Amino acid sequence: MDLKQMQDFFNSNDLFAKSLGMRIVSLDEGYARAWMELQKEHTNGEGIAHGGLVFSLADFAFAAASNSHGSSAVSINVSIAYHKAVEKGTLIAEAKEIARNFKLATYYVAIWDESNELCASFQGTVYRRKKQLGE
Amino acid sequence: MDLKQMQDFFNSNDLFAKSLGMRIVSLDEGYARAWMELQKEHTNGEGIAHGGLVFSLADFAFAAASNSHGSSAVSINVSIAYHKAVEKGTLIAEAKEIARNFKLATYYVAIWDESNELCASFQGTVYRRKKQLGE
Amino acid sequence: MDLKQMQDFFNSNDLFAKSLGMRIVSLDEGYARAWMELQKEHTNGEGIAHGGLVFSLADFAFAAASNSHGSSAVSINVSIAYHKAVEKGTLIAEAKEIARNFKLATYYVAIWDESNELCASFQGTVYRRKKQLGE
Amino acid sequence: MDLKQMQDFFNSNDLFAKSLGMRIVSLDEGYARAWMELQKEHTNGEGIAHGGLVFSLADFAFAAASNSHGSSAVSINVSIAYHKAVEKGTLIAEAKEIARNFKLATYYVAIWDESNELCASFQGTVYRRKKQLGE
Repeated sequence: MDLKQMQDFFNSNDLFAKSLGMRIVSLDEGYARAWMELQKEHTNGEGIAHGGLVFSLADFAFAAASNSHGSSAVSINVSIAYHKAVEKGTLIAEAKEIARNFKLATYYVAIWDESNELCASFQGTVYRRKKQLGE
Repeated sequence: MDLKQMQDFFNSNDLFAKSLGMRIVSLDEGYARAWMELQKEHTNGEGIAHGGLVFSLADFAFAAASNSHGSSAVSINVSIAYHKAVEKGTLIAEAKEIARNFKLATYYVAIWDESNELCASFQGTVYRRKKQLGE
Repeated sequence: MDLKQMQDFFNSNDLFAKSLGMRIVSLDEGYARAWMELQKEHTNGEGIAHGGLVFSLADFAFAAASNSHGSSAVSINVSIAYHKAVEKGTLIAEAKEIARNFKLATYYVAIWDESNELCASFQGTVYRRKKQLGE
Repeated sequence: MDLKQMQDFFNSNDLFAKSLGMRIVSLDEGYARAWMELQKEHTNGEGIAHGGLVFSLADFAFAAASNSHGSSAVSINVSIAYHKAVEKGTLIAEAKEIARNFKLATYYVAIWDESNELCASFQGTVYRRKKQLGE
């Protein structure tokens, strides 16, 4: 798969992300940007974006970025810090590669609201398998 | 609110958890158990439970447990380690309080599949506000 | 190496732990307990045990527990939550295995002060190599 | 205290960092850079820099950066990912502020070896107290 095919793969085959209205809008080697529009059914008991929703958007960008080199990547560990509640509008998650070797790779994902304010910081590590994505 | 009312509050008002079919099935002070049935729309491109879905179930139990003392608790930081892919069936998340003081509290959440195998370990910290839950 | 030899290996060859007065006092498969006596040179600018010192004791127990199965284990990711400042006396770190497969394993480490109060919670994941410990 | 006095405060009063040969070499609001020279007594049983030592250098930079605004900051939660073993030479940790509000602030700390290769990534959150640093 080339990068365009991978982007389509993620947007078509990640059914969870799809059901939440998430899209990979940009993909490059070691890089991905994901987008979504916040809906009422994405909120928690306080009426703000659910922590799991914010995490999921970041995780979607993380999955795309970490699989972008071709080999299938499995999430091992993630840490997230929440900085600011999100009440409405669009959310953007941008994943960048921090480090990568043969077996492991680590990514930083920033999550921004529609005012370009940083809402959460996500750092995740994957184990890189021998099999290729989609095999 | 007493514990029964809180459990109802979480099951009715957390719209994200509700839309994913999650339920708080047990709640006590500093403790919560959440349950869900895995559906096709909860899977990722590999056809297994999405990392964000597993996180979200744990986060729901974490929110219920950390709010169970009455004061409104805001998630600051979470770390999750994934141990095993989940393909089908029911998922259970069980949140237990590790430590708590006036301002902060930390919880461990175990996520189990229907064979009682541990799928992920979640550790999260909240900031405890002066306002009460639901105010 | 049997477990007794491993315990000696860690107490003799981990020069950083040794220089800080740390000892593995108990070792079993997937389990380790480390001990130290807090000294003035272990404190930070506030006069309490340095966060790096508390982490290091936990990391020492984590290393012993994760290498206890024989294959050499490399730390990939750790998350620590601090619950309570430590001012004086002995510190204990107890590492327990949460999950383990062929390539990866995860441990929880509790850090206690001399009043048996929980001071910090540490969760770490290792990558397990083919080579044996000490090779 | 102005920034120069704070830098001196950390270099003189953080006895743990001092005993390990660590220095804050640069300090600004929300920013700090720490330096050390790796010694034999900083290594683990594999003969490489101990994970606790690498963490401690990052934690020292984190403490300086998070206290740089004047109010005393207490570490709540840290997550670290290890990318590359360090065998010898100098280590640098650079802490940058990611987000800050009245009560909480989050920092990213990169740890580099003498070849300017990234060895570890550290993300930490502090609780900001009303008291001032050194009071």
